[in-house]
Amino acid sequence: MTQSGSLAGVADTLLAQSLVHIQRDIDAAFDRLLPVPQDARARLVEAMRYAVIGGGKRVRPLLLTATAELYGVGRESAIRAGAAIEAIHVYSLIHDDLPCMDDDDLRHGKPTVHRAFDEATAVLAGDALHALAFEILADSMVSGDPFTRIELVAALGSASGFQGMAGGQMMDMAAAESVFDLPTVTRLQQLKTGALLGAAVEMGAILGRVPAEGRAHLRGYARDIGLAFQIADDLIDHEGDAASAGKAVGKDAVAGKQTFVSLLGAERAREQARALVDQAISHLSLYGPEANLLRALARYIVERDR
Amino acid sequence: MTQSGSLAGVADTLLAQSLVHIQRDIDAAFDRLLPVPQDARARLVEAMRYAVIGGGKRVRPLLLTATAELYGVGRESAIRAGAAIEAIHVYSLIHDDLPCMDDDDLRHGKPTVHRAFDEATAVLAGDALHALAFEILADSMVSGDPFTRIELVAALGSASGFQGMAGGQMMDMAAAESVFDLPTVTRLQQLKTGALLGAAVEMGAILGRVPAEGRAHLRGYARDIGLAFQIADDLIDHEGDAASAGKAVGKDAVAGKQTFVSLLGAERAREQARALVDQAISHLSLYGPEANLLRALARYIVERDR
Repeated sequence: MTQSGSLAGVADTLLAQSLVHIQRDIDAAFDRLLPVPQDARARLVEAMRYAVIGGGKRVRPLLLTATAELYGVGRESAIRAGAAIEAIHVYSLIHDDLPCMDDDDLRHGKPTVHRAFDEATAVLAGDALHALAFEILADSMVSGDPFTRIELVAALGSASGFQGMAGGQMMDMAAAESVFDLPTVTRLQQLKTGALLGAAVEMGAILGRVPAEGRAHLRGYARDIGLAFQIADDLIDHEGDAASAGKAVGKDAVAGKQTFVSLLGAERAREQARALVDQAISHLSLYGPEANLLRALARYIVERDR
Repeated sequence: MTQSGSLAGVADTLLAQSLVHIQRDIDAAFDRLLPVPQDARARLVEAMRYAVIGGGKRVRPLLLTATAELYGVGRESAIRAGAAIEAIHVYSLIHDDLPCMDDDDLRHGKPTVHRAFDEATAVLAGDALHALAFEILADSMVSGDPFTRIELVAALGSASGFQGMAGGQMMDMAAAESVFDLPTVTRLQQLKTGALLGAAVEMGAILGRVPAEGRAHLRGYARDIGLAFQIADDLIDHEGDAASAGKAVGKDAVAGKQTFVSLLGAERAREQARALVDQAISHLSLYGPEANLLRALARYIVERDR
């Protein structure tokens, strides 16, 4: 963290506590959602548990719960919706790590699912987490109101399909054989990373039944941090070390992919990320201190080292 | 078909027409749902279209629409829900065909998606079809009632996840290294194939707002045809030829998997499938001629050669 002063210190404490709490609560949710069956499905559920419990920063669930809390949504509801979006995020990591995709051996500092288990189990564990996300959202425990639940399904479905995350991943695969300009890389990242980060904020707003004006501001916030998040990822890939990142780094350059860093240079990319964070925070001006966690999260997203 | 007589002839005509109509309508639905984007996502959507348009018998959509029609559901609603369940079925075929899973070159008589495109595109196309299924169900075009829509999501989600299809697929992978007895093979197939066939009937019943008694009968019907369907699949794998099956055959024996045919012998397996079909049809006794399509479908499921 580059902040100083007592207000920033309070924000850091709030953020640090929130990161601990979200990890504890999301782990507990998956532990309940994924009892290991006493039959040949055990290996599948063990692979799912291996992937979703104990790893990751839980940025998406935290964005979701922080937004929901602004509007007084109960913790249990928000955590369930947070587990749904995290299940989608983690399934996408499992599949992206496969040998036929990025062929990664390390994720969150431990062997990837296809390394710890096998490829077929990794494909299936990703598929089963994908289905689990929608099962969670269909359950009345997430909200007693069916319209709220179906809105959550719609937001998560469109953010993760060909018009969102999967489409961005396809563009990313094409990036190695193409020379993408800045608008194309921006569009790619808005789909690949931004769509799901945006869905996290949107789903929090859906749970909170946020009126139209509030949603527009929150969408602006989400759009800006989505792009900032990806620039930060590119900087980590460019400058980070594998030990702190918990995954292989320097891969984009090897693959010949255009990134924000290759197109802008590291310094301008970093400036751009910080400007986006400032802009994201300016979208929260109608909120008081109750939005401090969202503000701190925006800063954390560009200052993190993994 | 082994039936004779004019009534069976009428049923055959009804079935033949319905198979043509469902293929036309499901193809048209996917054509509308999957416009090819003018950017690097085009290859992904082309792979999705390659997989879902023009192939397959559309058994699940037909079960769904036939059940829905019993209760006066409009064709457009039923076709949309049918496209959702077909999207799940096809994504599972794409992933099952991958080199790390069954490593199949042929599906519906044409190269599998990873053969026609590449492995990474096949993984992503499956994932994007998986998300599309839930996007379709979240859309108010499938039903104006949010409770109906979320019930559809719940039924499809639980049928396809680790407690359903994906769990059955995991058990199937373990089958090559284990010696499964008949109850275990039955359980495996109830999950791998039966869960989604059951969901097709259930989703038709949800759209039709079928009362509890009717649902119990329809579930009995679905359970019996689900098992009969898999026995028929085992018989096709055991006795069929690749040309009419449109895929490789004889694979279970090579893989050392226990099937209904290896456990019961072909003749007893065939008898069992026919007995299940009779039992399935007996569950429809409270319906008149309006259920003739479901009756004909039950027979078709065991008499087909692919």
